[in-house]
Amino acid sequence: MGKLTVVKVGGAVLESTANMNAFLNQFIAIDGKKILVHGGGRKASQMMETLGIPVRMVDGRRITDAQTLEVVTMVYGGLVNKTTVAALQARGCNAIGLTGADSGIILAKKRKITNIDYGYVGDVDKVNKRMLSMWVEEGLVPVIAPLTYDATGTILNTNADTIASEVAIALSVMYDVSLVYCFEKAGVLANPNDDSMVINMLSHDNYQKLKENGTVSAGMIPKLDNSYHALASGVREVVITNAHRLLEKSGTALTL
Amino acid sequence: MGKLTVVKVGGAVLESTANMNAFLNQFIAIDGKKILVHGGGRKASQMMETLGIPVRMVDGRRITDAQTLEVVTMVYGGLVNKTTVAALQARGCNAIGLTGADSGIILAKKRKITNIDYGYVGDVDKVNKRMLSMWVEEGLVPVIAPLTYDATGTILNTNADTIASEVAIALSVMYDVSLVYCFEKAGVLANPNDDSMVINMLSHDNYQKLKENGTVSAGMIPKLDNSYHALASGVREVVITNAHRLLEKSGTALTL
Repeated sequence: MGKLTVVKVGGAVLESTANMNAFLNQFIAIDGKKILVHGGGRKASQMMETLGIPVRMVDGRRITDAQTLEVVTMVYGGLVNKTTVAALQARGCNAIGLTGADSGIILAKKRKITNIDYGYVGDVDKVNKRMLSMWVEEGLVPVIAPLTYDATGTILNTNADTIASEVAIALSVMYDVSLVYCFEKAGVLANPNDDSMVINMLSHDNYQKLKENGTVSAGMIPKLDNSYHALASGVREVVITNAHRLLEKSGTALTL
Repeated sequence: MGKLTVVKVGGAVLESTANMNAFLNQFIAIDGKKILVHGGGRKASQMMETLGIPVRMVDGRRITDAQTLEVVTMVYGGLVNKTTVAALQARGCNAIGLTGADSGIILAKKRKITNIDYGYVGDVDKVNKRMLSMWVEEGLVPVIAPLTYDATGTILNTNADTIASEVAIALSVMYDVSLVYCFEKAGVLANPNDDSMVINMLSHDNYQKLKENGTVSAGMIPKLDNSYHALASGVREVVITNAHRLLEKSGTALTL
């Protein structure tokens, strides 16, 4: 099988043009076929504050009412996605920006209301691997925003870490897939406040222990849960690393 | 040659969900291969007002400073484009939303400063007909936002009427192209205030006369100039019609 690298970038990297450019310079140097998934959380919150729309988060997840959905559709699908695509094009990388709705690549379902109503938030139902692999085989680099859609034609806000792992899993039947989560930290840290304490390799058993003793912070848990799910579902390699060390993959490699 | 219909929708149609849905129901009923180009001007102005960014227009063209560029990138490339794509997907139409930057379909140049500095406004340099025809042959329906990019990776605000005509012209070497401009009026009117006074057929000579005697309003001139340019450059048919009469093409047909 051919190789494919799925890279997710998020957090503070997206908030600085200099950091984002440094990241993109590494991204384009990845050998072979690749897909980029981006977040954009804080930019959406900033826009909501400017617009006077209250930001509500539960366990790190955004409550997405109709007004919030408009903002994330604009910021993720428009501003962050298109700025990134144009920056990649200028670097000779033939990027194509997509949300889940575009050519129906990621169909989702609106999350059911339990004790919390997350609003217009989507859980991934199906990744269209035929369409995504067509772009990739054509030499294109899909740049995917954290937005999906449902069968009624509603855009849904969807966690970017989850999109990255679901895309990686779906394509693992056709490619030898590496999934790399990039952010501003150096990897999974043994001490959350000390960036030098990177855990180079983290097994699922040890992850459970770190979760129990509180070493792994709330924001890291969905990322790691997605990572182990990907490994258990056909993805060959998952690495969590600093965005500026993407090519070295010097952060934390996960093992089952 | 196979048939291809390029439809541009703009104006008040985009401002009402009901009108837009009625338009999309007609659009999906167009037989065969098709491309949709949308505007979104007033939505951007509304967002700018909410954000406290001054709106500046010269001859119906938006002066696009850095802040304005962010807003149009969000509103055109995110909100309008993705909402339209998801609505088409729900109707079984396999839409893919694109700006000029996506897969490099429309490269532009920043407009040179003469007596007016339009800011981040692009003039179309090159339409990538190979890529666009690939989508179309794959059964996809490109939905194009009025944004292009330049070689430095800067997004540029670009007139949607011009994008529609440039796309139609580029693809006219591969397809028998109909270009349809849809808006809230019935067509080109002999009396701008009377929607029943539609000119069914307008030759280029008669257009010049209407322009001289002031019958054709300022907002219509770029649309009509684009239309005659398209006819002179290989597009078979250009029609200007009401968005709800897209299938009948009951408005104004233009002839050289």
